[in-house]
Amino acid sequence: MNKVITIGREFGSGGRELGRRLAEKLGYAYYDQEIVQEIAKRTELSEGYVHQILEKKPIVSYPIHVGGSFHMTSGYQGDHGLSVFREQCNILREMAEQSNCVIVGRCADYILRDMNPFRIFVYADMESKLARCRAKGEVDEQLTDKAMIQQIKNVDKQRARYYEFCTDQKWGDRQHYDLCVNTSNVEIKRVVSILSKMFE
Amino acid sequence: MNKVITIGREFGSGGRELGRRLAEKLGYAYYDQEIVQEIAKRTELSEGYVHQILEKKPIVSYPIHVGGSFHMTSGYQGDHGLSVFREQCNILREMAEQSNCVIVGRCADYILRDMNPFRIFVYADMESKLARCRAKGEVDEQLTDKAMIQQIKNVDKQRARYYEFCTDQKWGDRQHYDLCVNTSNVEIKRVVSILSKMFE
Repeated sequence: MNKVITIGREFGSGGRELGRRLAEKLGYAYYDQEIVQEIAKRTELSEGYVHQILEKKPIVSYPIHVGGSFHMTSGYQGDHGLSVFREQCNILREMAEQSNCVIVGRCADYILRDMNPFRIFVYADMESKLARCRAKGEVDEQLTDKAMIQQIKNVDKQRARYYEFCTDQKWGDRQHYDLCVNTSNVEIKRVVSILSKMFE
Repeated sequence: MNKVITIGREFGSGGRELGRRLAEKLGYAYYDQEIVQEIAKRTELSEGYVHQILEKKPIVSYPIHVGGSFHMTSGYQGDHGLSVFREQCNILREMAEQSNCVIVGRCADYILRDMNPFRIFVYADMESKLARCRAKGEVDEQLTDKAMIQQIKNVDKQRARYYEFCTDQKWGDRQHYDLCVNTSNVEIKRVVSILSKMFE
């Protein structure tokens, strides 16, 4: 069976860079945005829309009142949410069956749990996340620190909600990971050079 | 400044073994029970009693009603709790100033925070903890699995309470550690051989 490494990460923690560098160092395939692109292709939805579904509300349903009784119905992206999630499962499995790989996000730790992935969670203190976001231009440069912190928190809140919705597990809860790495004041390169030894 | 590695750990996770082996591999001093012995010597209390204070109720105080008004008073081990904690702080600092070291438990991550220790938290799933406890004879062999699980949970509950009381931080919360290591189904030796590379 191929080796699969999954990376869950707080926004701004350098988790994506860690995943990319780790894959590079180990000669594994690396999947991140490719997953969104592939889902978009298969579902014939736009990448932006798929991204929105994946990051925000995977499946929305709410009760409506029809003819004196209540029914559950899907919200505007209800059916798309389901098909996107289904395709995501298919794609992740195909990727993991193809070769050793590193997968960032996408609930891959849970979806591929029968393949016994090595599950890493990457986090950092707010100061470091702020500095990383500024350095990488991942958020609008014009934003004040306060507004950037709010944005970082919002992204993580969405990730937590999506993860918990799909997996029924708490996002970032150590019990669901093999290793939780704090990247505050640490060079990602250095973390990768040590982590990679686990897979040699 | 000396390098200090602190190890927080769930009962049965192999954290103590990890600390001991890591110290051995790195040639660092290793402190664990030595701390309790030293506190006992300095406070002239018995080791057993010091241990009880450290593991259970560090400082107990409760309100009593005297002459129509309420006063806070110390419980039976109130003053001892305070002096034990004070000595613990002194001893940890002396140890850390003496040489590079690995310290297991004792809120060392918090007490020595100005020395910038590398803070590891070790945990595992219940099945692994149960198996480790049985293998090491750390709990009464006669106990059923159910009773052993309860005992493991109780020890951790005490550790969490003690840690939170002394540090005002949540025990095991990833934000307070540099690395959280899941030792389920992993050989401690192997973990140590990789971890040690971080300090070489």
